[in-house]
Amino acid sequence: MLENIKNPNDLKKLEIEQLSLLSNEIRQVLIDKLSNHGGHIGPNLAMVEITIALHYVFNSPYDKFVFDVSHQSYVHKILTGRSEAFTDESKYDNVSGYTNPSESEHDLFEIGHTSTSLSLACGLAKGRDLQNENYNVVALIGDGSLSGGEAYEGLNNIIENNSNTIVILNDNQMSIAENHGGIYKNLQKLRETKGECENNVFTAIGFDYYFIEDGHDLNSLIEIFKKVKNCKKPVLIHICTIKGKGLNFAEHDKEKWHWNFPFDKNTGESKINLDIDYNELTGQYISEKLKSNSNLVAVTSATPSVFAFNKDRREQAGKQFVDVGICEEHAIAFISGIAKAGAKPIYPVYSSFLQRTYDQLSQDLALNKNPAVIIVFAGSVYGLNDVTHLGLFDISLLNSIPNIVTLAPTCKEEYFDMLEYSLKETSFPIIIRVPGGKVLSNPNYKCTGDYSNINKFKIEKEGSKVALIGIGTFFNLCEKIANELVTNYKIKPTLINPQFISGIDKDLLRDIPKNHSLLITIEDGIIDGGFGQNIASFLGMSNVKVKNYGIPKSFPDRFIAENLLEENGISKKQIIDFIIKNLQIKND
Amino acid sequence: MLENIKNPNDLKKLEIEQLSLLSNEIRQVLIDKLSNHGGHIGPNLAMVEITIALHYVFNSPYDKFVFDVSHQSYVHKILTGRSEAFTDESKYDNVSGYTNPSESEHDLFEIGHTSTSLSLACGLAKGRDLQNENYNVVALIGDGSLSGGEAYEGLNNIIENNSNTIVILNDNQMSIAENHGGIYKNLQKLRETKGECENNVFTAIGFDYYFIEDGHDLNSLIEIFKKVKNCKKPVLIHICTIKGKGLNFAEHDKEKWHWNFPFDKNTGESKINLDIDYNELTGQYISEKLKSNSNLVAVTSATPSVFAFNKDRREQAGKQFVDVGICEEHAIAFISGIAKAGAKPIYPVYSSFLQRTYDQLSQDLALNKNPAVIIVFAGSVYGLNDVTHLGLFDISLLNSIPNIVTLAPTCKEEYFDMLEYSLKETSFPIIIRVPGGKVLSNPNYKCTGDYSNINKFKIEKEGSKVALIGIGTFFNLCEKIANELVTNYKIKPTLINPQFISGIDKDLLRDIPKNHSLLITIEDGIIDGGFGQNIASFLGMSNVKVKNYGIPKSFPDRFIAENLLEENGISKKQIIDFIIKNLQIKND
Repeated sequence: MLENIKNPNDLKKLEIEQLSLLSNEIRQVLIDKLSNHGGHIGPNLAMVEITIALHYVFNSPYDKFVFDVSHQSYVHKILTGRSEAFTDESKYDNVSGYTNPSESEHDLFEIGHTSTSLSLACGLAKGRDLQNENYNVVALIGDGSLSGGEAYEGLNNIIENNSNTIVILNDNQMSIAENHGGIYKNLQKLRETKGECENNVFTAIGFDYYFIEDGHDLNSLIEIFKKVKNCKKPVLIHICTIKGKGLNFAEHDKEKWHWNFPFDKNTGESKINLDIDYNELTGQYISEKLKSNSNLVAVTSATPSVFAFNKDRREQAGKQFVDVGICEEHAIAFISGIAKAGAKPIYPVYSSFLQRTYDQLSQDLALNKNPAVIIVFAGSVYGLNDVTHLGLFDISLLNSIPNIVTLAPTCKEEYFDMLEYSLKETSFPIIIRVPGGKVLSNPNYKCTGDYSNINKFKIEKEGSKVALIGIGTFFNLCEKIANELVTNYKIKPTLINPQFISGIDKDLLRDIPKNHSLLITIEDGIIDGGFGQNIASFLGMSNVKVKNYGIPKSFPDRFIAENLLEENGISKKQIIDFIIKNLQIKND
Repeated sequence: MLENIKNPNDLKKLEIEQLSLLSNEIRQVLIDKLSNHGGHIGPNLAMVEITIALHYVFNSPYDKFVFDVSHQSYVHKILTGRSEAFTDESKYDNVSGYTNPSESEHDLFEIGHTSTSLSLACGLAKGRDLQNENYNVVALIGDGSLSGGEAYEGLNNIIENNSNTIVILNDNQMSIAENHGGIYKNLQKLRETKGECENNVFTAIGFDYYFIEDGHDLNSLIEIFKKVKNCKKPVLIHICTIKGKGLNFAEHDKEKWHWNFPFDKNTGESKINLDIDYNELTGQYISEKLKSNSNLVAVTSATPSVFAFNKDRREQAGKQFVDVGICEEHAIAFISGIAKAGAKPIYPVYSSFLQRTYDQLSQDLALNKNPAVIIVFAGSVYGLNDVTHLGLFDISLLNSIPNIVTLAPTCKEEYFDMLEYSLKETSFPIIIRVPGGKVLSNPNYKCTGDYSNINKFKIEKEGSKVALIGIGTFFNLCEKIANELVTNYKIKPTLINPQFISGIDKDLLRDIPKNHSLLITIEDGIIDGGFGQNIASFLGMSNVKVKNYGIPKSFPDRFIAENLLEENGISKKQIIDFIIKNLQIKND
């Protein structure tokens, strides 16, 4: 059937019974692609019927759909002319994992972060009203996303705007892991009473409210959607679905099957063997530390998997583990409060989501100098490569915030040594930026457990002519470059591991001009506003030439890390060529 | 009576009748200081009885009070050993306008941004519980602050934490201006039913709820506070107060008297005559523009005064004005949606509050390239000087975000010319950074209404030896320096107004080394991660020396702008001396 559905109009020609067959077919297509390709499994399997019913009743792209996070938009893509990207293996990567206006006029926004859909939809509705247009604006948000403050802000202003905005709350009783927070008490009560309980946050703030008990029943969905279509005021439809619906093991272990690598569709067994990574190592480490220090508490904003804090570890941690829900802003203020009270919070978070917290980092945490610990994961070209989840911005983001000490370890041993130190520090907040790529061990690393000499760079090898500052991930590359310069060019460079990226070692840098004519920095992020530029600026009046390597300000999408690096001159060969060329010019 | 109250213990010795007299005395003290000194009037007059009752019932600093925004903490300061800063004119400035741990152990955090108190308090409670301590944690939040998502996130996690946390909701039915958003429908219903209506967002998410109809009645306050003291689970007390209570004109025009300059306490007349400023000019401009363009909409996040959008202008604007409440994050997504729908949003905002939106600027707006317009006010050393409201960070903050074009006008004419252009641009978001200090007119400025040649710097005067890049506020200083170099030193520098600060003019900069040996940048913000560093980095391999002027990464508090600038070498004399000294070295 899917072959004949080139756009939503083709769908509208079908009888409701046929829609049911179609939903089975789509579910099978999803399972086939996902088991071969990986992706968001649970969220999309839950959305099959809702999406079919939406496209059956509403008229996209005239009517506007906004998907929260948009990781649940696969069925929408299938129904809007992009089914081949799900049925034809050679075309799998023709579509992104999120809505993408460059793919289709049915996609309104590039979205990947949580809790934004209601605010964006509210804006669409306002823009529509100003122009006296009449289309429906429909926002789809999962129960997990409802923990984010931006969602609440969106709900409030949708009511204020008081015109057609249809909020679909897809309640599968799960965030990525289980839900946490007061709002979920109300959702539970609403489910238990089939939407009838009087105490209802949505009606309390002004929504017309509908409840659909079975979000996989096309008849109920279509009935209610028809009812609210062209409504003149804000409506919220609370729909219960089953995450992973139709895939046995995904229904059973919803957390594991939120997103996954390719798998055997019969057994669920993963087709990928992963090396042990910093996530798992961090989980082991924190789990052990919690046992010996009852004042220590691990905090996550709904992504316990970032530090491999699986159910066992969470249960074992008990009160020493807190999942605050998807609300990074709260998380930062929360850990600031914990640290102020004299306990020790440790908060592992993806680089891309740390972006949500600039003001909380600055005001709630840094200004108050409370000694919380934050671990930043996937802050690297080797991290997530979807344009919505890039880990390239955090160095620049943090660069202007006073009072926070940011550490950039270069290997496993240094990372855990810095972690040890951070848990003991009582005077200021510390951020540790986990290196990108595979776990790198340096058994010779001299652990000191002490990084209190702030901004003191570490000279690994003293040399002359050229100094190499390799930051975090790229120290290893600098080391290789240094070795090759010695071996092949008889140049012995100075090799520096700065360790700190929240400030510069002014004494060390002042000495650089004495016997170097060139200084190179390589950082794992955007150059603009980054760490290297601090050094270029500081040495701006000196005779030393400075070259900052990094990624130029941009939003690269679904790139291959090595290609992106090479495009920007970041490979051993390119950098050695650059050094040789410029040292020769100097010698002329 | 106040003389005998050196700390909260002295308060506890009084009879309730005496407390009532004390409240009158404190109110008079507040009015006296505020009329001489200026400050937050309405919020503090509303909090007199609540604060007295809190200190009467609870035991600060053992029990912990967290004030949202903390602009309503004056009475708390008076009762905790700091009354002289309110009664003795020579000591007025011994205290800041916000809670400040360096002033007193009764102050837990430096706070100035909205909606953070619940999250911070939740952290304190968690830290307390981990250490098996038993103090009360009390968070005080105004109804206005409840529109911010971080407050909602805090409410949710307080319930999750499920131990003693007492939330005091001070409901004076006002934000800075009037409230906007769905949540206020529920507050209204609760007030109308004296807290009895069944639909109650606070009980819905799990709070024990108390309602106090008269927040100026000490008996009711003390009774309920005693009841909830040492509670074992989260409690919310909804207290109705009158903003500006006890000062007739402040009760009458609550918006005007939220904060004010010194005034005549009998008439309310201002003691300060203000020059016309960019705020007022912007209000006039937008008000006119709205009339001629029905697709244009002015958006504020609860600070209409930032563009002098008083009641008359708001009413006149009708649907073309939206106050979203205190939620900057939502505001950015909202304007992105409006622009996507084809209408034109314009969002004036304080620099300090733009900090809350890094992720929304990046993901919701920039990634989607929707042509919204943002005007940044007080992004300057000449802006707000409280450490919690600094306008020094936005240049660095924006520096790493792709796709946004940021313009830095240097005078009134250029500012409005850029605004004209921004309203016509349909391809990308534009941020305009209003210059700091007094309005500067340059009647010779050639308005083009076109800034679509992105990152094209403007050479105001061609010269040699030294190039001066004066950004926004500081272009005028560079112009003066240039003139003096010509007059007194026979050096004719190149003078550049970059106009764009979201990118650099590579062609222009590549030519600089041809006949300059020194380049100076001066920007109105933190150097680290700022605009000047982009230039230092770009010219890092050239023979030109680069000196970046700005404020080093720090949190200066209640500074005098000229002093702060001079400390950092930013004065005409200092910069000329620097130039002369360094040009001579070059000539040696």
